[in-house]
Amino acid sequence: MTIGIVGAGQLGQMLALAGYPLGLDFLFFDRSVDTPAGRVAPLLAGGFHDEALLAELARRSDVISFDWENISVDALRRAARGTRIAPPLKALAVAQDRLAEKRCFRRLSIPTTDFAAVDSRASLAQAVARVGLPGVLKTRRFGYDGKGQHVLRSAADLDSAWGALGSAPLLYEQWVPFDYEVSIIGVRARSGAIAVYPLNRNYHVDGILRLTLAPWAASRLARAARRCIERVLEDFNYVGVLTIEFFVHRGRLIANEMAPRVHNSGHWTIEGAVTSQFENHLRAITGLPLGDTSARGHSAMINLIGTMPEMHRFLAQPGVHWHDYGKQARAGRKLGHCTINEASAARRMKRAKVLLSQLYPQLALRP
Amino acid sequence: MTIGIVGAGQLGQMLALAGYPLGLDFLFFDRSVDTPAGRVAPLLAGGFHDEALLAELARRSDVISFDWENISVDALRRAARGTRIAPPLKALAVAQDRLAEKRCFRRLSIPTTDFAAVDSRASLAQAVARVGLPGVLKTRRFGYDGKGQHVLRSAADLDSAWGALGSAPLLYEQWVPFDYEVSIIGVRARSGAIAVYPLNRNYHVDGILRLTLAPWAASRLARAARRCIERVLEDFNYVGVLTIEFFVHRGRLIANEMAPRVHNSGHWTIEGAVTSQFENHLRAITGLPLGDTSARGHSAMINLIGTMPEMHRFLAQPGVHWHDYGKQARAGRKLGHCTINEASAARRMKRAKVLLSQLYPQLALRP
Repeated sequence: MTIGIVGAGQLGQMLALAGYPLGLDFLFFDRSVDTPAGRVAPLLAGGFHDEALLAELARRSDVISFDWENISVDALRRAARGTRIAPPLKALAVAQDRLAEKRCFRRLSIPTTDFAAVDSRASLAQAVARVGLPGVLKTRRFGYDGKGQHVLRSAADLDSAWGALGSAPLLYEQWVPFDYEVSIIGVRARSGAIAVYPLNRNYHVDGILRLTLAPWAASRLARAARRCIERVLEDFNYVGVLTIEFFVHRGRLIANEMAPRVHNSGHWTIEGAVTSQFENHLRAITGLPLGDTSARGHSAMINLIGTMPEMHRFLAQPGVHWHDYGKQARAGRKLGHCTINEASAARRMKRAKVLLSQLYPQLALRP
Repeated sequence: MTIGIVGAGQLGQMLALAGYPLGLDFLFFDRSVDTPAGRVAPLLAGGFHDEALLAELARRSDVISFDWENISVDALRRAARGTRIAPPLKALAVAQDRLAEKRCFRRLSIPTTDFAAVDSRASLAQAVARVGLPGVLKTRRFGYDGKGQHVLRSAADLDSAWGALGSAPLLYEQWVPFDYEVSIIGVRARSGAIAVYPLNRNYHVDGILRLTLAPWAASRLARAARRCIERVLEDFNYVGVLTIEFFVHRGRLIANEMAPRVHNSGHWTIEGAVTSQFENHLRAITGLPLGDTSARGHSAMINLIGTMPEMHRFLAQPGVHWHDYGKQARAGRKLGHCTINEASAARRMKRAKVLLSQLYPQLALRP
């Protein structure tokens, strides 16, 4: 069985590495010929709107999935021509539009921050008046890792924010003075069965995920997050892995966004869960039973960003699992990650701090 | 860095899947174009004595290794032309010759069964007279999984044994009425550091490994096996993973054979050890520090032989890790394996029995 995947980044690479032992084959589709997934599987290279190439992907695949959200839902739907696509494109379409996403959360009684659509300078002023300051003006589409966002602290910021982002459809959100960030990753099978991973606690720097600790032992929050993701999975008749990111403010969850795919905050599941998020995504979309999402021990995952550190030094430390995506170094780019797995949360914290201080000596991040 | 691997079977495939996260690339060389490793990495196809193709492998690789023992040491040495080869070819040469192997064990004070070289009908009679009956006549070279062996129970069997095998250089060994079989897997780094995995208990049927339980909690035997493999690793100035198989007779080890490579009895290390045998082989041959060989929990590995069972049924059972090598089905052929990992040896035994009864209802094997 061949899995066609749109986007050939590190998520695609890790899907392929998890899928080969299940006897699956892979075919990737990406704009670039030099991609992490292209290192480990065949690749079609072309524009994400190239319907002829998307149609070839569909023809050569038994099911199509994606490792990247910023693709054309319409082009993919037209090109698929009856080849099954999972997760469902309606979930992808909602995830591509921050306004639709927030409305979806509201409809499913999942708490969000206050928000308003913005499509003109005048409606920005109205949104700020209604939602209040401070707030964040965001593009509705094509934002990730903190890109396409502008913080408004006072009325004097409206012009610069509008100048920076005003050419695109926008959303204005109330600023959330959150205490920390968590994410939940769930998977739904074609049978309708659902399995949910333990809660992740995430630490971002400059909008980019730097560290995840999992399981994050906050059982009341984990139960609440689980109820949220189950509602979304069922509402979309979803098939595959889904991620929801939350802010935690005064002990309560505030849904920030969802990703209809495997997620950076779930990379720890490769070594730290009975079944990884990658294997479970593939099990779901190929109609297999889901695997056990239980944690094995206490994991910490640290992203390797901008430049790859000297691998030798870190592999010399016991139990450091290294993942080099094989990408060209570039400031702010996710080039790899490493994971440790310990018998206790206290030991994990201690080692995560040591690794962080070695990897990012200048960083103020303190888990 | 590109790792060139002679032989593109399932061992090669699992090496590549373990090596991609380390940022390594792979190039395989095999007689067949349809191979497990060729599913996941580029492949050169040609005869194992094709020195032009071996030279191309060497030219395109930073280090050469092998996943298959029955290759020409001389051809490989000539073709390598300065490209580093690991493990050392002298270890491969010894492992290819059961007589040299037994003599090596003797030299290193590693206990073996009594044996004698056989190169004529007359020397077979002398060997049987000296070593005694029953015994096993074996080809010195190119035997694996019980192939190229003939059991002699009485003097009447000499003619048939000679008729079956007499065209090749032979070895006659005393029959070992062993209680069970174990194996030890160790790895030596280029720095000289050594790490050894916990002991494996192996169950064979018709000469083919069917089940491995690891760690096998026999601490005195494990210590003895560890001392044996350390001696071999140091004697050869070895780099990479090495396996030694032993019979256990009245609580003592009797070395049977060694394999200068990752080994079927170590497949459980993918899910059941901190660092898999595949990753540690790659760390060793690329000059990286070795990873922790400690077990995580209690593993059982069952080979899937002859026909692939219906995956769906087994993945529906919690914690069954499935490995389908993507090979054509054929009687007696290793097509895949599955591994379970449990918190206790008792629970592992219970589940291994259930899985064995489902996979091989006719089999008398009882762990």
